[in-house]
Amino acid sequence: MKSVRAYAPATVANVACGFDIFGFALDYPGDEVIARSVPGRGVSLKAVHGDHGRLPSDPGKNTASVAVSAMLRHLKHDGGVELEVHKNMPLASGLGSSAASAAAALVATNSLLGEPLSRRELVPFAMEAERVACGTAHADNVAPSLLGGFVLIRSYDPLDVVSIAVPGSLWCAILHPDIEVRTDDARRVIKKSISIPQAVANWGNVAGLTAGLLTSDFALIGRSLHDGIFEPDRALLVPGFDSIKQAALESGALGSSLSGSGPSIFALCETKEKASHVAESMLAACKKAGMRGETIVSSINLQGAVVRES
Amino acid sequence: MKSVRAYAPATVANVACGFDIFGFALDYPGDEVIARSVPGRGVSLKAVHGDHGRLPSDPGKNTASVAVSAMLRHLKHDGGVELEVHKNMPLASGLGSSAASAAAALVATNSLLGEPLSRRELVPFAMEAERVACGTAHADNVAPSLLGGFVLIRSYDPLDVVSIAVPGSLWCAILHPDIEVRTDDARRVIKKSISIPQAVANWGNVAGLTAGLLTSDFALIGRSLHDGIFEPDRALLVPGFDSIKQAALESGALGSSLSGSGPSIFALCETKEKASHVAESMLAACKKAGMRGETIVSSINLQGAVVRES
Repeated sequence: MKSVRAYAPATVANVACGFDIFGFALDYPGDEVIARSVPGRGVSLKAVHGDHGRLPSDPGKNTASVAVSAMLRHLKHDGGVELEVHKNMPLASGLGSSAASAAAALVATNSLLGEPLSRRELVPFAMEAERVACGTAHADNVAPSLLGGFVLIRSYDPLDVVSIAVPGSLWCAILHPDIEVRTDDARRVIKKSISIPQAVANWGNVAGLTAGLLTSDFALIGRSLHDGIFEPDRALLVPGFDSIKQAALESGALGSSLSGSGPSIFALCETKEKASHVAESMLAACKKAGMRGETIVSSINLQGAVVRES
Repeated sequence: MKSVRAYAPATVANVACGFDIFGFALDYPGDEVIARSVPGRGVSLKAVHGDHGRLPSDPGKNTASVAVSAMLRHLKHDGGVELEVHKNMPLASGLGSSAASAAAALVATNSLLGEPLSRRELVPFAMEAERVACGTAHADNVAPSLLGGFVLIRSYDPLDVVSIAVPGSLWCAILHPDIEVRTDDARRVIKKSISIPQAVANWGNVAGLTAGLLTSDFALIGRSLHDGIFEPDRALLVPGFDSIKQAALESGALGSSLSGSGPSIFALCETKEKASHVAESMLAACKKAGMRGETIVSSINLQGAVVRES
């Protein structure tokens, strides 16, 4: 029975000013999915490990199987695929857990079937999984998890995914506090419309962050890492957010904001050493706010999802 | 009596998706201003040539003198400066006429006083002139007129002006139809707020245009040159807009939109030859729509305002 195991990494979406358009991949944590050719048709879900029984085992609701179903329909594939999901990352953490499972499942299945599609062509199927997971087919986690690097979703209709080169020394510190924020809850608190001055301020930052990354202008990256639109509302769901962000900035981060819809908080830093120091400061502030938490210190992962074994 | 003559170029503001944040300078047309040291204090306006008597001769209302007044107050300069404005560009054309007069006046006066300020430091005084001219202290014409090149206003508070490098072969075609649109009228028709999906679509384009320019990705520049927010309303003030824009795109422009608030229409092109061809097609469409018009074919002017004689 042919089988392929693939890994897809956690991701930071939004990246302060880039709601629904920016995301980047981390080196770890990530999910692994094993895809096997089995008799019959369609997608079955053999097991989900590491989720403490919390994820849906119904193939119509689990993001790994939803994504692969969409892909098989597109390919008009009439064989059967069985998936086994190994969750190695926290749920509802703001680190793109649902996206990583979908991306790993797609890359494993694509390899199993002889690579009929490119990584870029897999993005829409992973978006379908996001629609099931949180109600919105956003691409700012799934695209970087599949492709790696820092990704711009220039347009959703038609889908236009653009890779943005980043300075080699750019590192990320993450503080994941031991609480959960469901993405669908976090999307419910966001505004329905914004004023023109708010919009102008935000597109200034979006252009500034893009230019800062492409020209390795760290000061410009830092000045552009602001979200005056969604962060104020969403941060209310994360106790201690202000003090943890403040700790990141005071210990040398270029900028800091919620990762996706939180509760994880990311900070971009000029070097690995600074990111390590920033992560420690964020963890200390988290503990001071009365929460346990864990840190991640990672470069920007340029590979994205990979086949590990076949 | 010491005197300095300076030239400041026309500019294209907004650049489709970049309302209030993007602008670039053209090689021509532009305004010239002569600044002279005279006895007494403050700014006087000796003459305005080429405006057919339409611009205010009150120094408190003309953008050249308003800008220089703000500068002299900042410098606590207690001498007198007399200005003579040579308007060489059409009024209410969407090409930054008020900005060019202010920029030329500032650069001439700054040179007259021994260059106490950098070009970048002159921007806020020119913005004061824009406030008088159209009610809003926007910087997307004055900054490129002073600094040259393609400019991002990342933030207005605090003011943060960032130069964006552009591909060397990038050229611009302009069609200036023989009608006028007052900037303050054009600002009145714009929306007060926008939906989140509209905002997301626009910040995708803002990031895409920035990335396209910095990586010389002409296709990405073209895909990003869209304004779904303001153009539909503002285009109603410009008869024939749709057919002129269509002519530009069909004859090979990367993208096309209103220059500032119109009535001029710009098109960015990959080469000088394409820009010449596109300009001809736009003019033909303008005539077909029953209007006279003139064309400009220009590279992106990297110099900005310059002293021509002192």
